[in-house]
Amino acid sequence: MKILVLNSGSSSIKATLFDFSKSPSGKETQTEIAKAVIDGIGLKRCKFIFTKLTKTTATNIEKCHITHHEEGIKLILETLLKTKCLKDLGEITAVGHRVVHGGEKYTKPTLLNNKILKEIEKLSSLAPLHNPANLASIKACQKLLPQAKQTAVFDTAFHQTMPEKAYLYAIPKQFYKKHQIRRYGFHGTSHKYVINEALKILKKSSPRLTAPKIISCHLGNGSSITASIAGKCIDTTMGFTPMEGLPMGTRSGSIDPGIILHLTNNLKFTTKEIDNLLNHKSGLLALSDLSSDMRDIHQAAEKGHKASVLTIEILSYQIAKQCGAYTAALQGIDALIFTGGIGEHAFYIRDKVCAYLKFLHIKKILIIPTNEEKQIAMETIELISEC
Amino acid sequence: MKILVLNSGSSSIKATLFDFSKSPSGKETQTEIAKAVIDGIGLKRCKFIFTKLTKTTATNIEKCHITHHEEGIKLILETLLKTKCLKDLGEITAVGHRVVHGGEKYTKPTLLNNKILKEIEKLSSLAPLHNPANLASIKACQKLLPQAKQTAVFDTAFHQTMPEKAYLYAIPKQFYKKHQIRRYGFHGTSHKYVINEALKILKKSSPRLTAPKIISCHLGNGSSITASIAGKCIDTTMGFTPMEGLPMGTRSGSIDPGIILHLTNNLKFTTKEIDNLLNHKSGLLALSDLSSDMRDIHQAAEKGHKASVLTIEILSYQIAKQCGAYTAALQGIDALIFTGGIGEHAFYIRDKVCAYLKFLHIKKILIIPTNEEKQIAMETIELISEC
Repeated sequence: MKILVLNSGSSSIKATLFDFSKSPSGKETQTEIAKAVIDGIGLKRCKFIFTKLTKTTATNIEKCHITHHEEGIKLILETLLKTKCLKDLGEITAVGHRVVHGGEKYTKPTLLNNKILKEIEKLSSLAPLHNPANLASIKACQKLLPQAKQTAVFDTAFHQTMPEKAYLYAIPKQFYKKHQIRRYGFHGTSHKYVINEALKILKKSSPRLTAPKIISCHLGNGSSITASIAGKCIDTTMGFTPMEGLPMGTRSGSIDPGIILHLTNNLKFTTKEIDNLLNHKSGLLALSDLSSDMRDIHQAAEKGHKASVLTIEILSYQIAKQCGAYTAALQGIDALIFTGGIGEHAFYIRDKVCAYLKFLHIKKILIIPTNEEKQIAMETIELISEC
Repeated sequence: MKILVLNSGSSSIKATLFDFSKSPSGKETQTEIAKAVIDGIGLKRCKFIFTKLTKTTATNIEKCHITHHEEGIKLILETLLKTKCLKDLGEITAVGHRVVHGGEKYTKPTLLNNKILKEIEKLSSLAPLHNPANLASIKACQKLLPQAKQTAVFDTAFHQTMPEKAYLYAIPKQFYKKHQIRRYGFHGTSHKYVINEALKILKKSSPRLTAPKIISCHLGNGSSITASIAGKCIDTTMGFTPMEGLPMGTRSGSIDPGIILHLTNNLKFTTKEIDNLLNHKSGLLALSDLSSDMRDIHQAAEKGHKASVLTIEILSYQIAKQCGAYTAALQGIDALIFTGGIGEHAFYIRDKVCAYLKFLHIKKILIIPTNEEKQIAMETIELISEC
């Protein structure tokens, strides 16, 4: 059974084609057949990267001219046929879409219909850059793959188990009740995937642990940390928007709200300028005064670039503090997970974080490569088998 | 030797008169002679509360009509004479002023002269409500008590030992270098006082502890938590302004910066409205939908008022998380201090915080009543003895 997973941003589409099969003995296997990325929709620099993963892996990168999501998905589907990853588009049983914001309503993967699409559209005010792009891809697939089931796997869903004490902000209730302002959290699919992988490991190594307390650090261009008990999220650092929490590639993370008021009142910044400043010019880029990419920062730090050394120190310190905070929230910790580009590869960050946390004597410190696409595919399969 | 301590807000003055004396055996004693509060300067509801503390304590509360700080200080001084707390104003050797913002320059108590006054005035852009009030009282005292030395004890000074990794925000460097935007922290005098008291206790109980790791929770109408090693602050929750960190009486504490942008962009709030919302209508008042005073909230919670029960839970949770974060920052913890109105009296908050932190097996959990006035008086004495 072939499942296409789509992760659409405002100017990009990432696609993975999976083959799920059961062997005669009943063992399930998942194979990635191909990956495709279209980066720069509507832009001059638009390019198309296609990788066929079966047998011999071959990647092809070419410039392309794509002006909207439907056109992009068409290109991907045509390429899947041309490269014989698919014989026929009818082979695709379902398309699993990553949808960023599911609000409070969507706590599970959901089979899409027009009523639900309208509700996702309504949630666009909470994720103005992402939900419209997700919707554009869903609508394109409804048209281009009319036989396939369309499902949504929400980036916020995993966090919907958070208790009130974790998701309410200390601002008047009307902002929650009327305007839906609360902590939602993001990266849910990634946290869920790595936490489930960790639970399998813990089950083998510590079979008597009934409700493992796990802190998962998804550290990439965007970063978030989640506290979970027995696979259920109880708190997470990203909030109403993905801006809260750790400093990220170009995002500031949490700052004193008084700074924003000072920027407006005293330094006469417009909201648009502040938005641009905190989303695109802050974070690791601002701290290092060099790059938003941790690999560049590490290279410079190795050569003695002071701001880069400090950037690594600050990020590690913030991660460690957040892990300390969540250990208090969980009243203990059984496992700590690192994932995401930085989490998986930046050993110098992990080392520093672990040095801060040494006093906790954490039993399991795990590096688990995330695979959001696989998680979306698995949830899609599960959903359509239920239906 | 008589020392007057003044803590001036934009519409209030709190004064304490101390008598410092050395017994023939060389033992120093500090006695509080009187306390005075003028609350509501420039307002119709202005009142004057005066308490004489020697021998029989008597408090007198009366309405008054005070339009500016000089007039208020005059009333206080006249009352000190009238009640025979002072025979002559010349008895006052020095006036210790609490000054809220000392920026990066003022890391110690400082003997005031006109040059320094100008610099404090410059720092008013960082503390627009407080520094001008502090200055008004200093200038009034220069006029009314020309013989007395004037000193400033800064609320930010204790936190100036924080390392860069704790005080820098992940925003472009120019905001720090050009606009002084960094974490300063407040409540410094209170944290310093209770940490010094705790150090005395630890010295007796654990004489071999060379660099005690102490977390101090100042929980009152404003709240902040500080991490310290060997009496030196290494991190604190209040930031560029006193708005960051824990939810407070009517202040939101830290929230997703994205919420402020959403309030402006989507809900069309003005900056003035957001300022008012986050400073005066949020925090415990918003969570409980009842009161900014923890005593009211506790009473309501006892009667089953759900929002109040949740408010207590949220505040405790946030305090516990912050203590967890600072334990990571300190790589351990030797003592935890509670102080301030809530910290000293709200056992139900302390109990919950300690339950979260049980896994840390903290050796010393201390409740230490704060005394900022005494700390200011002691620092003033020390300073003028050096000169």
